[in-house]
Amino acid sequence: MSEQYQKVSEEQHKKVQVNPYGPNPSDYLSNVRSFQLIESTLREGEQFANAFFTTEKKIEIAKALDDFGVDYIELTSPVASEQSRADCEAICKLGLKAKILTHIRCHMDDAKVAVETGVDGVDVVIGTSQFLRQYSHGKDMSYITKSAVEVIEFVKSKGIEIRFSSEDSFRSDIVDLLNIYKTVDKIGVNRVGIADTVGCANPRQVYELVKTLKSVVSCDIECHFHNDTGCAIANAYTALEAGAKLIDVSLLGIGERNGITPLGGLMARMIAADREYVMSKYKLHKLRDLENLVAEAVQVNIPFNNPITGFCAFTHKAGIHAKAILANPSTYEILNPSDFGLSRYIHFANRLTGWNAIKSRVEQLNLNLSDDQVKEVTNKIKKLGDVRPLTIDDVDSIIKDFHADISTPLITASEGPIPVNDETTLLDNVKRPKLN
Amino acid sequence: MSEQYQKVSEEQHKKVQVNPYGPNPSDYLSNVRSFQLIESTLREGEQFANAFFTTEKKIEIAKALDDFGVDYIELTSPVASEQSRADCEAICKLGLKAKILTHIRCHMDDAKVAVETGVDGVDVVIGTSQFLRQYSHGKDMSYITKSAVEVIEFVKSKGIEIRFSSEDSFRSDIVDLLNIYKTVDKIGVNRVGIADTVGCANPRQVYELVKTLKSVVSCDIECHFHNDTGCAIANAYTALEAGAKLIDVSLLGIGERNGITPLGGLMARMIAADREYVMSKYKLHKLRDLENLVAEAVQVNIPFNNPITGFCAFTHKAGIHAKAILANPSTYEILNPSDFGLSRYIHFANRLTGWNAIKSRVEQLNLNLSDDQVKEVTNKIKKLGDVRPLTIDDVDSIIKDFHADISTPLITASEGPIPVNDETTLLDNVKRPKLN
Repeated sequence: MSEQYQKVSEEQHKKVQVNPYGPNPSDYLSNVRSFQLIESTLREGEQFANAFFTTEKKIEIAKALDDFGVDYIELTSPVASEQSRADCEAICKLGLKAKILTHIRCHMDDAKVAVETGVDGVDVVIGTSQFLRQYSHGKDMSYITKSAVEVIEFVKSKGIEIRFSSEDSFRSDIVDLLNIYKTVDKIGVNRVGIADTVGCANPRQVYELVKTLKSVVSCDIECHFHNDTGCAIANAYTALEAGAKLIDVSLLGIGERNGITPLGGLMARMIAADREYVMSKYKLHKLRDLENLVAEAVQVNIPFNNPITGFCAFTHKAGIHAKAILANPSTYEILNPSDFGLSRYIHFANRLTGWNAIKSRVEQLNLNLSDDQVKEVTNKIKKLGDVRPLTIDDVDSIIKDFHADISTPLITASEGPIPVNDETTLLDNVKRPKLN
Repeated sequence: MSEQYQKVSEEQHKKVQVNPYGPNPSDYLSNVRSFQLIESTLREGEQFANAFFTTEKKIEIAKALDDFGVDYIELTSPVASEQSRADCEAICKLGLKAKILTHIRCHMDDAKVAVETGVDGVDVVIGTSQFLRQYSHGKDMSYITKSAVEVIEFVKSKGIEIRFSSEDSFRSDIVDLLNIYKTVDKIGVNRVGIADTVGCANPRQVYELVKTLKSVVSCDIECHFHNDTGCAIANAYTALEAGAKLIDVSLLGIGERNGITPLGGLMARMIAADREYVMSKYKLHKLRDLENLVAEAVQVNIPFNNPITGFCAFTHKAGIHAKAILANPSTYEILNPSDFGLSRYIHFANRLTGWNAIKSRVEQLNLNLSDDQVKEVTNKIKKLGDVRPLTIDDVDSIIKDFHADISTPLITASEGPIPVNDETTLLDNVKRPKLN
């Protein structure tokens, strides 16, 4: 039986991947099947309230990200502090496969320090919105353009990659934006960046802006989305549909305020669109360890509702869900937990349980009951589930008592949660370790 | 000075609201400015792994949601268990302003029980995808349509609201979907529902499906989005843009697996689009208490990165962010924390700090330093921040020592974090209570 379940599962999961959830064929500039990641836990993530990374911790995180398969690792500006510079140099010397970037203001002072650290590229940013021009640096667009050109030509002369990004792009004047992007594209930047610095953008705005920008520049487009209004993953996906190539992410999304597009959440979104590309490029079974590494370093818990690694991301509870999942997991799953080295659970010890889940449990206990008998014992379980939270022991006791009443004495019975097959485990409420 | 800051803040926040982040004017069917909430903590939320709600807790949650201002409260099916039916009846008797709904399978057996509970409306659902038709109920579309018509006409005959929803709508055949929606619209349902049951949908798919459906039916459209791939908030927003009217939410998004569109996260998204509508309709300053109520009931922590109520959602750290926020909070904020009864923080005791934040601290301590002197002492602070996490005491000691070295002895100095104005507080890293 176990084999049969798995076979159906594999086939069906494949079907889902080639079905309507892939890239939209009308997005002819889409990079959904060819996106790259700029991992910024060691830059944006250092701006998270709780973050203090020692040199050793930075190196550990950089190596783990590199092993996972990220394309770029972005580091705090070397002018932020003495140690920030030393750490940047140390990480450049590790010889990682990922390219190392550092992130600086659009100043020659910063650029001169950055190019000496050994990085593969420099990410330059300057505020272009009215807000930032008025309250942050106080410069006008012609000054911004002049600085940008100077910094870009300098970094290019050193033979390393250069990205120019506006800041707060979605509150910047569109004409200002396109003008400066066109200028920096002409002088040969590797990438231009769009940044939703305050987290205000929504997906269709993102699609429009990226699509427009795509018609103006020939270089790659990178996007950076804050999550203040909860759209950072969706905005990243929509940007890729419109033709952006690179997305800034961090582990658990850590960054200023409530952070940016999380690496794990974006993996969930992308694997639903192109499983083959994502599986071939990134070591998804290391995602949980990566998240735990940074969660421990910044002293937070993995959110209970985190995509993929939240403790209940693959737990099915309602009776009709459990029934269908037992027949074929793709009925209620777009992600396959085994792609991430994780398992699914059927939560049957509660008042919402159905007789199909209980029937599975009866079979696990090596007992024989007719369907009508299973329905009868299910009603007894629901009755107790109305009174209090149940454990697996509670359910097993009810089943065994019921069985004893109607038949010969019990010979064998397995204890504890038992896998239905290699991937699915029946689970109670109370015994689950509280992971967050 | 405090007054001046606040005045700028109010004006600027207003500006943002009427600026480009509101509804897209080309979405002429948009309900972004007129949406309604179907709050499903007591239905979808009960399917969350950890949920066990006593009758008392259900009543407490229902009353709190009603006070917050939700339009509908959806309850677990009365046929799930005996107590579920009794609880449904009890909540109907509370006389809340919100309409009470219950959620049932598309069966006459369920409908007959539901209409006797005293609910204001019944939400009917049936799986229409190939997956669910094959592995869940095993029925074909003509059987589904026949059952739907029977149940709908029965519920309507009782004079209460009726919604018909497909399940797993984004994996259903579009022709099947439109056929059945058209049929149920003709016989007079109040709403049709689209459900992303597995969390696979992305925003532009949602926009297309809702827009198409809007051209087929005359009734309201309700949407239900799971969050497996992190798009539940964005999908809800895009659905409203396309003409959907009602969104299903739950507190903290609790539900099957990692849940659905969270109430708080959707409020963040919607207030950025139409602050006036949201503020006039919902008691946003009660959001934190509401979330704490349900977090405690299901034994989870508020995620550290939760929109609005995550402990760092309004904490600014990097030097250039702190500088601009001190001049005008709208530079790096699309949400105003005071709208939710919350405060913003400037995190200045760390190596990313800048001299503008330190200058504010020097002024709070009633000390006089020139800008050059502030820059000098900032460098000392960054140096210690390279070595270890800092407290406010560390920073204050460095400032005071520096000041003592260059001037007459210190007379007064305030201790601990002090508000910059009524809304903004300077804050250190280490002393912040760990809230999650």
